[in-house]
Amino acid sequence: MGYTVTVVAPVNIAVIKYWGKRDEELILPLNDSVSATLDTSVMCAKTSVSAAPEFTEDVIWLNGKKESFSNKRLQNCLREVKERAAAEGSVDKNFLSWKVHVCSENNFPTAAGLASSAAGYACLVTALAKLYKVKTDVSSIARLGSGSACRSVYGGFVRWHAGSDPSGVDSIATQIASSTHWPEMRALILVVGDSKKKMSSTKGMKITTETSELLKHRIKHCVPERTTEITKAILARDFPKFAEITMKDSNQFHAVCLDSYPPFVYLTEVSHTIIELIHSYNEICRETKVAYTFDAGPNACLYMLESEVPKIFKIIKTIFPSSNPTKFISGLPINDADVSTDILGKLAVRTQEHDLIKYVIYTKVGEGPTDVLDGSHLLNELGEPINEIVE
Amino acid sequence: MGYTVTVVAPVNIAVIKYWGKRDEELILPLNDSVSATLDTSVMCAKTSVSAAPEFTEDVIWLNGKKESFSNKRLQNCLREVKERAAAEGSVDKNFLSWKVHVCSENNFPTAAGLASSAAGYACLVTALAKLYKVKTDVSSIARLGSGSACRSVYGGFVRWHAGSDPSGVDSIATQIASSTHWPEMRALILVVGDSKKKMSSTKGMKITTETSELLKHRIKHCVPERTTEITKAILARDFPKFAEITMKDSNQFHAVCLDSYPPFVYLTEVSHTIIELIHSYNEICRETKVAYTFDAGPNACLYMLESEVPKIFKIIKTIFPSSNPTKFISGLPINDADVSTDILGKLAVRTQEHDLIKYVIYTKVGEGPTDVLDGSHLLNELGEPINEIVE
Repeated sequence: MGYTVTVVAPVNIAVIKYWGKRDEELILPLNDSVSATLDTSVMCAKTSVSAAPEFTEDVIWLNGKKESFSNKRLQNCLREVKERAAAEGSVDKNFLSWKVHVCSENNFPTAAGLASSAAGYACLVTALAKLYKVKTDVSSIARLGSGSACRSVYGGFVRWHAGSDPSGVDSIATQIASSTHWPEMRALILVVGDSKKKMSSTKGMKITTETSELLKHRIKHCVPERTTEITKAILARDFPKFAEITMKDSNQFHAVCLDSYPPFVYLTEVSHTIIELIHSYNEICRETKVAYTFDAGPNACLYMLESEVPKIFKIIKTIFPSSNPTKFISGLPINDADVSTDILGKLAVRTQEHDLIKYVIYTKVGEGPTDVLDGSHLLNELGEPINEIVE
Repeated sequence: MGYTVTVVAPVNIAVIKYWGKRDEELILPLNDSVSATLDTSVMCAKTSVSAAPEFTEDVIWLNGKKESFSNKRLQNCLREVKERAAAEGSVDKNFLSWKVHVCSENNFPTAAGLASSAAGYACLVTALAKLYKVKTDVSSIARLGSGSACRSVYGGFVRWHAGSDPSGVDSIATQIASSTHWPEMRALILVVGDSKKKMSSTKGMKITTETSELLKHRIKHCVPERTTEITKAILARDFPKFAEITMKDSNQFHAVCLDSYPPFVYLTEVSHTIIELIHSYNEICRETKVAYTFDAGPNACLYMLESEVPKIFKIIKTIFPSSNPTKFISGLPINDADVSTDILGKLAVRTQEHDLIKYVIYTKVGEGPTDVLDGSHLLNELGEPINEIVE
């Protein structure tokens, strides 16, 4: 019957944080942001889209569950891809009138707060753009789904330009450098348990934008300077500089959340213990060897060069013991390392109680969305999900 | 033999926070601050000073323990009071050459992090000024002991002017309004347990001053505007405005601590639960009835008008149950209150585990330092402590 396209897309973790919108509907940010795109072989969203004349309605299955297609952000993405295709004349009008079936899955728990919507919307929009043969930059379409999704449209190190046009036409992502430019860059994601209900990013950004005095200074002075500086650090592969800016910007993002009214917090005491541990380790090394960054949740993403990974992982295992060590680490393989008892003794943080860090994912900077060409679609020939669906 | 003078002095809790020095030695602040002075009948420092020709050295006993008088801040205070006395010609030069004995006690645990050094230095300097008959403003001398001590030299609502003179001559405290101006103002101090070692104020201020980008905006824009606004609110007895500025400024102070590099935190998860509780209560009331403020530690000071106290205390007892209810509250008496189960049901915070708040002190805005005229000195006629000393 119709056509099916399948794509995988990466998550990205910002080092200069996006926080605050100048347009809620178009998802236009107040400031530029910078991120690294992470390897899809470890964490990714996978999306199949089908279009067929027989489909009676647009349908989406998300992580094994049928969801409403009436979601405005989803609608905006689909409409925009079709409009772009129509403008480019890439497919015929009849094809554009067919309904679509979408099936999308993340290969990591969405509940872990790991930027799943960025990967998901980048994947959806890339798949739709491929289906409709859109040739122009799709980052501004992915942005309509979830702001940070526009950065997942490219691999390597990516900058999302805030832009200034009210239409959002210049609010797009561009690549600063590909993943091969700095092949030693690695990330350890520390998933921290969180019992409290959290403030959604959308709501939190709105409160900060409306009430934080300090946000104004961040937007006007701090972010422009840091964006320039971290771009230079990436191009020069200057890890200590990259790391310092990354940590300072994470801290400042959480500071403006606290300066909001009412204030809100994403960092837990475990997050703060991780921060203290990293500063202590860097101080012992007399060089900034590791950077932490925290999104709107308690999980840490640690950036470091490949040579540091075995030592850092050993320290994390020691300070944050797990009662299930075999399931503690996933992703790329890590070699064993000895860490001198001297370093462990000097650390400002003592061994914590078990399971404060639930698990760790080891990954690296990787490519942008890629086509799945081996035929392993998530939709069958009738446009129905191949995997089990929970009703 | 010599002369003995005894004084009691109050603690004060800032509503516009002092954070950052422009001169470490003279303790000159980067910004103005505003506080309320709390009733000495509930919390105070008490200090006796004696001078006698027979004394061979300056000696100080602090909370039942002999301490070194070589402490620079202590030396600066004593030297400055004597210089002032000499300049004013208030006592004869021979008297100024006698050594002093000082005995000082707080009637509340110093470890609780309740601005004990502010009360202590205000008390010491006021006692010394009385001994040497200094007539001019002594707030700038108390400032040399501990910055915020200069605010404890006056009762009611007090402003510490940052000043601009490098000598510190204009960095003094003045009274905005006496305690009788707004007699309904009350404070509940919630003492929260804290296991972690904390960053000292002195060290924390230094890190923030040297590293926080956001502090610059706070100093230049936020504090001047807030100081003007809260002064108006105090003079107009506008509680909702007073409370809103108080909470925003507390949050901003903690935000700049987080924006420091390395970042540091004073608020614990219990502190954040208290913040959430107060915002939820105010929202239910559809009016800002209670303000929280946190100094460099996890304890909350809640400001409210007298009429709210029974209800708020009942809510605190319910949400933060104590395993020793009879010792949970001290200070002024509180009437029992019924809080409708409707309000309790609507609160965003559920009942917590026991003893997260260790105890509560109920107090009000009060007078500045006062002379103890009933002869209940802390030093006997030989200039030795009357109460037991721990060696």
